[in-house]
Amino acid sequence: MGNERVSVGIIGASGYGGIQLVRLLLEHPQVELTYLGGHSSAGKPYSQIYPHLTNIVNLTIEPIDLEAIAARCQVVFLGLPNGLACDMAPVLTAKGCKVLDLSADYRFKDLVTYSMWYNKERTDNVVAAKAVYGLPELYREEIKSARLIGCPGCYPTASLMALAPLLKQGLIVPETAIIDAKSGTSGGGREAKVNMLLAEAEGSLGAYGVAKHRHTPEIEQICSDLAGQDVKVQFTPHLIPMVRGILSTVYATLRDPGLVRDDLITIYSAFYRSSPFIKVLPNGVYPQTKWAWGTNLCYLGIETDPRTNRVIVMSAIDNLVKGQAGQALQCLNLMMDWEETLGLPRLAFYP
Amino acid sequence: MGNERVSVGIIGASGYGGIQLVRLLLEHPQVELTYLGGHSSAGKPYSQIYPHLTNIVNLTIEPIDLEAIAARCQVVFLGLPNGLACDMAPVLTAKGCKVLDLSADYRFKDLVTYSMWYNKERTDNVVAAKAVYGLPELYREEIKSARLIGCPGCYPTASLMALAPLLKQGLIVPETAIIDAKSGTSGGGREAKVNMLLAEAEGSLGAYGVAKHRHTPEIEQICSDLAGQDVKVQFTPHLIPMVRGILSTVYATLRDPGLVRDDLITIYSAFYRSSPFIKVLPNGVYPQTKWAWGTNLCYLGIETDPRTNRVIVMSAIDNLVKGQAGQALQCLNLMMDWEETLGLPRLAFYP
Amino acid sequence: MGNERVSVGIIGASGYGGIQLVRLLLEHPQVELTYLGGHSSAGKPYSQIYPHLTNIVNLTIEPIDLEAIAARCQVVFLGLPNGLACDMAPVLTAKGCKVLDLSADYRFKDLVTYSMWYNKERTDNVVAAKAVYGLPELYREEIKSARLIGCPGCYPTASLMALAPLLKQGLIVPETAIIDAKSGTSGGGREAKVNMLLAEAEGSLGAYGVAKHRHTPEIEQICSDLAGQDVKVQFTPHLIPMVRGILSTVYATLRDPGLVRDDLITIYSAFYRSSPFIKVLPNGVYPQTKWAWGTNLCYLGIETDPRTNRVIVMSAIDNLVKGQAGQALQCLNLMMDWEETLGLPRLAFYP
Amino acid sequence: MGNERVSVGIIGASGYGGIQLVRLLLEHPQVELTYLGGHSSAGKPYSQIYPHLTNIVNLTIEPIDLEAIAARCQVVFLGLPNGLACDMAPVLTAKGCKVLDLSADYRFKDLVTYSMWYNKERTDNVVAAKAVYGLPELYREEIKSARLIGCPGCYPTASLMALAPLLKQGLIVPETAIIDAKSGTSGGGREAKVNMLLAEAEGSLGAYGVAKHRHTPEIEQICSDLAGQDVKVQFTPHLIPMVRGILSTVYATLRDPGLVRDDLITIYSAFYRSSPFIKVLPNGVYPQTKWAWGTNLCYLGIETDPRTNRVIVMSAIDNLVKGQAGQALQCLNLMMDWEETLGLPRLAFYP
Repeated sequence: MGNERVSVGIIGASGYGGIQLVRLLLEHPQVELTYLGGHSSAGKPYSQIYPHLTNIVNLTIEPIDLEAIAARCQVVFLGLPNGLACDMAPVLTAKGCKVLDLSADYRFKDLVTYSMWYNKERTDNVVAAKAVYGLPELYREEIKSARLIGCPGCYPTASLMALAPLLKQGLIVPETAIIDAKSGTSGGGREAKVNMLLAEAEGSLGAYGVAKHRHTPEIEQICSDLAGQDVKVQFTPHLIPMVRGILSTVYATLRDPGLVRDDLITIYSAFYRSSPFIKVLPNGVYPQTKWAWGTNLCYLGIETDPRTNRVIVMSAIDNLVKGQAGQALQCLNLMMDWEETLGLPRLAFYP
Repeated sequence: MGNERVSVGIIGASGYGGIQLVRLLLEHPQVELTYLGGHSSAGKPYSQIYPHLTNIVNLTIEPIDLEAIAARCQVVFLGLPNGLACDMAPVLTAKGCKVLDLSADYRFKDLVTYSMWYNKERTDNVVAAKAVYGLPELYREEIKSARLIGCPGCYPTASLMALAPLLKQGLIVPETAIIDAKSGTSGGGREAKVNMLLAEAEGSLGAYGVAKHRHTPEIEQICSDLAGQDVKVQFTPHLIPMVRGILSTVYATLRDPGLVRDDLITIYSAFYRSSPFIKVLPNGVYPQTKWAWGTNLCYLGIETDPRTNRVIVMSAIDNLVKGQAGQALQCLNLMMDWEETLGLPRLAFYP
Repeated sequence: MGNERVSVGIIGASGYGGIQLVRLLLEHPQVELTYLGGHSSAGKPYSQIYPHLTNIVNLTIEPIDLEAIAARCQVVFLGLPNGLACDMAPVLTAKGCKVLDLSADYRFKDLVTYSMWYNKERTDNVVAAKAVYGLPELYREEIKSARLIGCPGCYPTASLMALAPLLKQGLIVPETAIIDAKSGTSGGGREAKVNMLLAEAEGSLGAYGVAKHRHTPEIEQICSDLAGQDVKVQFTPHLIPMVRGILSTVYATLRDPGLVRDDLITIYSAFYRSSPFIKVLPNGVYPQTKWAWGTNLCYLGIETDPRTNRVIVMSAIDNLVKGQAGQALQCLNLMMDWEETLGLPRLAFYP
Repeated sequence: MGNERVSVGIIGASGYGGIQLVRLLLEHPQVELTYLGGHSSAGKPYSQIYPHLTNIVNLTIEPIDLEAIAARCQVVFLGLPNGLACDMAPVLTAKGCKVLDLSADYRFKDLVTYSMWYNKERTDNVVAAKAVYGLPELYREEIKSARLIGCPGCYPTASLMALAPLLKQGLIVPETAIIDAKSGTSGGGREAKVNMLLAEAEGSLGAYGVAKHRHTPEIEQICSDLAGQDVKVQFTPHLIPMVRGILSTVYATLRDPGLVRDDLITIYSAFYRSSPFIKVLPNGVYPQTKWAWGTNLCYLGIETDPRTNRVIVMSAIDNLVKGQAGQALQCLNLMMDWEETLGLPRLAFYP
């Protein structure tokens, strides 16, 4: 009985979120992958899409039939483009499935904000109101009792891990927060786009979505919750010529200019004491994104500048693991009352 | 009792071979890492050399004292430059340690060949004569009863997996074998060299050691053993602008021009039937090195050209795992009579 | 009068061939770029497609109207997908334009071979019979008097520069020639394809088109011409995680095993004495693709292996310059009786 | 006489600054490269250090003999580590040479600041007082009449081009300026360092020198000069997995929240009207570092955020051209009263 694995399905399995979930779930001791679904790829053996899984994953992508899925899966992950999950999650949860959505659909408390930034009208207010933001380091207890999780975006995860202790403890002037974030190109998904070609993106670097990236309101919602007041942040994403990884460099002005680096390392260590995936780095060590590669870890490096009274926090994650599929699985572990770290990688391959 | 872990030490832990071993051994359920040793790095906490292991690995690099090591370790991995292991392995094996050497020192049946290519006189003939070449897919039984393993080089591993079925079954004209091999730069180790700088190696590609690379005699020794005759091969390594991975593209003329791709896929599949890490790819699928990234797998793609009567085999591995530390651990599993795959990764992160 | 620039147009200007031509023609002292044409991009300012040319190139992509083009351009470069140029070149040449086609359409003496490999019936035999293969180092005189040039593919250029002296002088056994070629991903063009995404191609390496790549018959046609007999070669292309550059590693068995490296360097140097873009490297120096980056150079490194009686020649070019647009311009220089090197870069930026 | 080329020498020619200068000077129509000097590489043919220049550059690195250099060179570029130029420039200028120093030695008006950040006592105050900061866009007139130029660092060049119009016109609150800068690894020079190995730096990203990088006081000196008041900035450099290029993302709070993007584009365009290398991008276009690759250009993208009252300016340069050797040559053009753009590349190869 303790041996019976929980049946898990993935809708939208062919993208990068999907393949990460497949990878992680295959090594998770308590689940069994019973369903992979998709629209355009329906009917294809999964190993045709990802040939390295030939003779390893023998499932075929099936069409999306919510009835059938609910009958076969106790847990469903949704790895679809924004605006589709909100039509499926109400059905699946009504049928008793636990649902973890990787898209933006269930990340917002205020659906008006969602509709404004994502251009999609919503009619599932009742369901959405019960969704929990799937950032375990901040909302661990809520996640444990949730049935529907809105898994955070990759940028918000990296940025919020850097900002949370500062805002929660009131250590910074909130409106001075600037997040300069840098991401590998896998964050753009598996869609063929010219600007994401190796020939275009390799050997180059640029910002995009300046002053208007959709992750801004998501970050602000959680920052406001932490600070207990309305917070606006400056958020600028950049595309880096590498596959995986996000580094968020966060700047903010300290309320108390007397705070030094050591103080802050102590505060951060205490704040994340019960968070096994957060690694607060020692004095003078700044994170490399590669350290988090293929893991669910988040590395935090902290510096203060007495010349400017600012704190600078650097946060590094794997955008597809802690920034996406790994974090979703971490949430599932909590929802199922399993060990939070179960089946989640904590050791990068280096170099 | 079944729970008592085997004590393992690594001499030469600070290089890339060392860090891979540390990574893999930390997740291996039957071993305990009890000693890390080195010369120049002695006295340094391991996490100072690899900061991503802060609070994960709490060992400090110790000086190399063979007596002490043998007292504390049942198994010793040697991750040193060529020419050093042959001074240590005799002492360690005499004291009862199982020794797995990652260098070239114990790869050669004929020490004259070794001395000629590696410029080092040898006096440990008796010990060397008992060493086994650590390629489990070819020498599984010998490894099981060995106490000293000469772990293969990364290029020989990739190349031999591609050539072995052809030579063993007499399918090709041996002297037509050409190995065009391509490696990521981590194969060059962690030593600071100008030509290995990102600024130099990125965005570029070149051959090196043409017609004189030291892995040539190692490949030829095993090829000759497989073919039952003296075999000379053409081996050309290239440096590729990426961190990890080797692709060997192997060309040879078929003795029987009637053999087609399907025949060879069948032959290869049978040859590697009991080898859980070898993945023979289906018709028309050629391996990408990334598929093997961070795993102990070897992917083989097979093609024939009826126009030229040649077979072309492509072999992809992670040069630091199946090409080095993972394979060494695979050997240890066999030596200890554990499951061959124990603690060895078989799922790459993709992309 | 000596100051009047020749009017030049490009049909198919939005791809990588097009942008290289634009770049090179802008710095060429004898031409004026008067027309840029395309289908899907017609109507767009060129600087919208390539924003780095804002306020530098003020032309707009125009629809393809052959009458109008012939009226405005003395020279027309065609940078279109295979199978389109053969419908345009007859019209343009009939109207007096000199035409340089970057596609495969005019590379073949035997249109049956073309039709077999490119799946396109041809009706322009008369025009095609007058086309010259645009490899100046081999067909300089024919190019000078040609009005229609079939510009070589990138792989054939690199491969033939390595093979030509060997075949022309009868130094090798032709059927032993194996070309293991490695290319940056820009060779795949500017079309959005999943396997060309940075997230997919970066950090990885694989072969493709094994034993069936379309450049094979093109290489064989010229090899046969050089050898004076029918020659079949083994050609295997690989995709390398970098933007630009091709390295061809060519293997062949020497007829006279007494030939040593020095002899061959002498022979190559003599063969290419009048070819200003060919750089035969000294003893023991092997080319890096980066050395040719952004130039029209081809670097050749030569090695012999007395153990196997083989010669190994490594050839490095920029696939988009000497392998495409630069070579086309080199042909134009010859056709116009200008200095062969006019306006063609010969100094890479390094690193 | 108009045809007599100016004799130019480079001390410290073997590093990346040196090779850029060699590359650029070879194509400059008014100069002749007559001397290459160095310490550790003295006696080596230059083409042994950079084999792609075999038969192109036939000079040999000579020992550093200031008397001899001054006798042979009208102009001397110094490409040495910090702290060496200040011992040579006084001698060379005294002998009538024009000197352009690529190191930090002559960038500071206040040698006390220099000594504090660079740990070197200075005795050449008189000479240093006459040195001009070699940023032509800001100090064009002073450069024209200078005999000694302290060429700016790569980060200050990118950052100051972004900040200058804002500070000069008093548009921002100076102490809110934050510069988040990202550089390719060639900025670290050609010294072999473990953290700069491709195996370490590829596929990763991190900050360094946070709150204490030596370019901070250099940036602040010019900012203060522009603002007419003492300015402190926050400057954070990051290492990006690419060879060349710097992107500086600059944040500052606008004094007048009514200023919009269009206003600022107009202001920047006017400010740089006479600066042929500065490209102010149109509405909504943000620069890619690759656009500047191999050129002396600086691309500026401008955005405002009405939600936060901040301006965000992105500045992209080639760190080794506009950020180093190209800018030095631009200064020489001004000093010699030649066309400012002479011999300086303005067209990148793309992609």
